[in-house]
Amino acid sequence: MAIVEVTIAPFGTGSTSLSRYVAGCHRVLEQEKNLKYMLTPMGTVIEGDLDLVLKTVRKMHEVPFDEGAKRVSTLIRIDDRRDKKGTMEGKIESVQSKLK
Amino acid sequence: MAIVEVTIAPFGTGSTSLSRYVAGCHRVLEQEKNLKYMLTPMGTVIEGDLDLVLKTVRKMHEVPFDEGAKRVSTLIRIDDRRDKKGTMEGKIESVQSKLK
Amino acid sequence: MAIVEVTIAPFGTGSTSLSRYVAGCHRVLEQEKNLKYMLTPMGTVIEGDLDLVLKTVRKMHEVPFDEGAKRVSTLIRIDDRRDKKGTMEGKIESVQSKLK
Amino acid sequence: MAIVEVTIAPFGTGSTSLSRYVAGCHRVLEQEKNLKYMLTPMGTVIEGDLDLVLKTVRKMHEVPFDEGAKRVSTLIRIDDRRDKKGTMEGKIESVQSKLK
Repeated sequence: MAIVEVTIAPFGTGSTSLSRYVAGCHRVLEQEKNLKYMLTPMGTVIEGDLDLVLKTVRKMHEVPFDEGAKRVSTLIRIDDRRDKKGTMEGKIESVQSKLK
Repeated sequence: MAIVEVTIAPFGTGSTSLSRYVAGCHRVLEQEKNLKYMLTPMGTVIEGDLDLVLKTVRKMHEVPFDEGAKRVSTLIRIDDRRDKKGTMEGKIESVQSKLK
Repeated sequence: MAIVEVTIAPFGTGSTSLSRYVAGCHRVLEQEKNLKYMLTPMGTVIEGDLDLVLKTVRKMHEVPFDEGAKRVSTLIRIDDRRDKKGTMEGKIESVQSKLK
Repeated sequence: MAIVEVTIAPFGTGSTSLSRYVAGCHRVLEQEKNLKYMLTPMGTVIEGDLDLVLKTVRKMHEVPFDEGAKRVSTLIRIDDRRDKKGTMEGKIESVQSKLK
């Protein structure tokens, strides 16, 4: 189980708005029943088996091309912890408990 | 107004747990009344005047050193949009409206 | 053909030095005859077929675990351009020609 | 002394080519006599006093706006090591010595 942040954006589309590409990527994610994910203002955080996550991110990377983009920039950040089960919720709770 | 994601982590601390450093960075953020921020599983997203955000991130970067770290890796991603007011909430809503 | 930057680093190893993990990752890269790559001070830039690059990066991500790490952070940045053949050399030359 | 990678790119310009913006950012860097820097296929790596680097990156971030862009994405990665003097050359040599 890994936690992975992904941000996918096309260059040269002529519009500063990128949300329709993000929405298209989320439609790919919706089809993966074994992944949890969370939309943030700067990307999407996905939790699940690392190989499944990466396979899904690879599909998401094609979305802007399918919609006409000619250049796509994709940022993937993997946090892979194997000494304990890392979850999206657990990471946030761990920080919040220390702030109390 | 810009939206900025920041992830700050020390190397070589001998522990795989990093949440106490994240909590320390949030204590710095709590003191800035003119910034909005959101904790995500992979970092912190901050909204506000870009110069104030960067000044604050610079302070946050010192937190792990203050707690004994000798090497710190900080990732900063700036999304700066000047054709309309970008907000953390607005970005998420824009995607969600296209998913309906 | 895509150009991909990758930075792989373990947390909690007790040492601030990370070069031996980078060297281990490069030994994986050396075995891929169809990829070009370049070491930079902040990561490794790889050029080649995107699926082959990602498959290789997936192997590189295991290197710190094989050497005893319990938590690994991997950053992958993909620049995928399909209107022309993007190469590492071509990108640098394009900037340099504009600086003359 | 820190080592910092920066990648600055505009969205919505209508062109997939970004090298003229990179060149503009390098003209800002050329004016800073106390910074070393290196162009890579995926960004620019800068070595120097962290506050001076960040002040310079802040100026570089304005370059695409000055040239008409309405949305700019800037990625900054800081590697700040205080147990020994980190240099761009030293980091590369450290890996290469382990590969021999």
